[in-house]
Amino acid sequence: MELKVVFLGTSGSMPTPERNLPSIALRRGRELFLFDVGEGTQRQLLKAGMGFKQKMYILITHLHLDHVSGLPGIIHTLSLLQRKAPLMVFGPPGTLEYVRSTIRRVGNLPFKVVVKEVSAGVVLRGPDYTVYAAWADHSCPCLAYAFVEDERPGRFYPERARALGVPEGPLWKKLQSGKPVILTTGKVVKPEDVCGPKRPGRKVVYSGDTRPCDSVVRLAEGADVLIHDSTFGEDMADRALEDGHSTASQAAEVAKKAGVLKLYLTHISPRYRDATPLLEEAVKVFPFTTLAEDLMEVDVKFRETPVGEECT
Amino acid sequence: MELKVVFLGTSGSMPTPERNLPSIALRRGRELFLFDVGEGTQRQLLKAGMGFKQKMYILITHLHLDHVSGLPGIIHTLSLLQRKAPLMVFGPPGTLEYVRSTIRRVGNLPFKVVVKEVSAGVVLRGPDYTVYAAWADHSCPCLAYAFVEDERPGRFYPERARALGVPEGPLWKKLQSGKPVILTTGKVVKPEDVCGPKRPGRKVVYSGDTRPCDSVVRLAEGADVLIHDSTFGEDMADRALEDGHSTASQAAEVAKKAGVLKLYLTHISPRYRDATPLLEEAVKVFPFTTLAEDLMEVDVKFRETPVGEECT
Repeated sequence: MELKVVFLGTSGSMPTPERNLPSIALRRGRELFLFDVGEGTQRQLLKAGMGFKQKMYILITHLHLDHVSGLPGIIHTLSLLQRKAPLMVFGPPGTLEYVRSTIRRVGNLPFKVVVKEVSAGVVLRGPDYTVYAAWADHSCPCLAYAFVEDERPGRFYPERARALGVPEGPLWKKLQSGKPVILTTGKVVKPEDVCGPKRPGRKVVYSGDTRPCDSVVRLAEGADVLIHDSTFGEDMADRALEDGHSTASQAAEVAKKAGVLKLYLTHISPRYRDATPLLEEAVKVFPFTTLAEDLMEVDVKFRETPVGEECT
Repeated sequence: MELKVVFLGTSGSMPTPERNLPSIALRRGRELFLFDVGEGTQRQLLKAGMGFKQKMYILITHLHLDHVSGLPGIIHTLSLLQRKAPLMVFGPPGTLEYVRSTIRRVGNLPFKVVVKEVSAGVVLRGPDYTVYAAWADHSCPCLAYAFVEDERPGRFYPERARALGVPEGPLWKKLQSGKPVILTTGKVVKPEDVCGPKRPGRKVVYSGDTRPCDSVVRLAEGADVLIHDSTFGEDMADRALEDGHSTASQAAEVAKKAGVLKLYLTHISPRYRDATPLLEEAVKVFPFTTLAEDLMEVDVKFRETPVGEECT
């Protein structure tokens, strides 16, 4: 199943002609997860060719306006589109009040908005994935989120199946999906007899607004993709500390400590019209770093190699 | 003094990849008037290279969310920019409550927001212009606005001044600005002795969301530019009536009745990815019609010719 990150907005605090306010879309099959919904998110979604999904989850890191100012517009548009399916909104304490005031402004909705105020821990359990949160270190309560797929069955080895007398066909499929089979001889063949060790699912982590902190390092451990606050360059390290943000090289330190595969720098201060210097600072610390740009898409691939090696 | 209309958002109800939610900027010298502020307006302003002005006025036609959802973001950004000058916001009853709830969300502001709830009549009198409002005909109280410059002095004829013995220099300038002068001979020369008849200022009218209606026709009389609701084509005339909007040809009828110079169609329904058919319907009724596009700029020129003739 395809897992795609689309950067809908990569600016911090205020937009620029090139960067919209914060929002990160994660699309997995027919499900859409929106992490933060800054002003203009609905239009960015349309520009990315994604539109709205029946199964849509909004996950808010914190209630600073630049991270939530797109929510009224999304709810208004979903209302005009006569959505019927409930809309799930997760966020820190205060989210319910914000959503309530938004709904009052829009008027009667043809769908339910289900708000869940969350804290560190499990936020959402899907059929084969889990979303976790951890407290980040910002100037207000701010959550970081991790989207983690369940482990996948190990690689299937046809030659082992043949050697054990399992005929090609439905029984192979059953074994591949992790279930044992009974042959006509009465012999039981288990998945581990014909498959390699279980393989990790994919993991995408978004820091929200944060100073570099251990809780985000732990949340991001071994992630395929870490999307981290990188508001400032080293020239503004004091300001980053004061405002509750990270510099690009601090984000890279977090990525290195967490042993992630790839780091994407986001929440770029509007002061950097050309943010290449931020990228240059980061790659000195962690080479597998990319400067996120609006509407950039990242296909998160399954990895076959151990954590720490480049595979995508 | 330059008078420029910039279409920041030309969609209706919801954005499309090509059209942002409603907002029309009118820039005159160092003053900026924003008519409606749909979500994404602040970014469109930046894209148009306009930014924020110290003398900035926001004029809201009505409180439907797609026309005001960009206000929180603007106020938030002005706050981050440490604006000191007051921000003036005009709109129909209900505007104060909306602005108050917005400010509560943003937090302490370093500037004052002055809200004036207005009705039909004079909204704002500037040094040499007036903004008027009239009630439009929408599904909720909705104002149309007219920006009208004062009359300008008539054309100055140097040969007449010379013939009357007025020496070239400061006295010419005084006469040109509409004031009489006394020559060394004691003779009084009045502006009308050396100037043609007073010339009209420029007039720009924005209908807001509306069915075709007489009050907007009257407000738009003789305007240089009429920007009119053109949500639907003739195929959707019933829907336009029901929802309180106009079709393109109804907008053209209004322009024709009001004897304006140019009509711009805006608030285009997202159903028309190609809105050329709307333009085609309108030009059959009123040839001087343009389909507004996002970030389109219109320089409104002074006219020397009588109303009804093409001069820009």
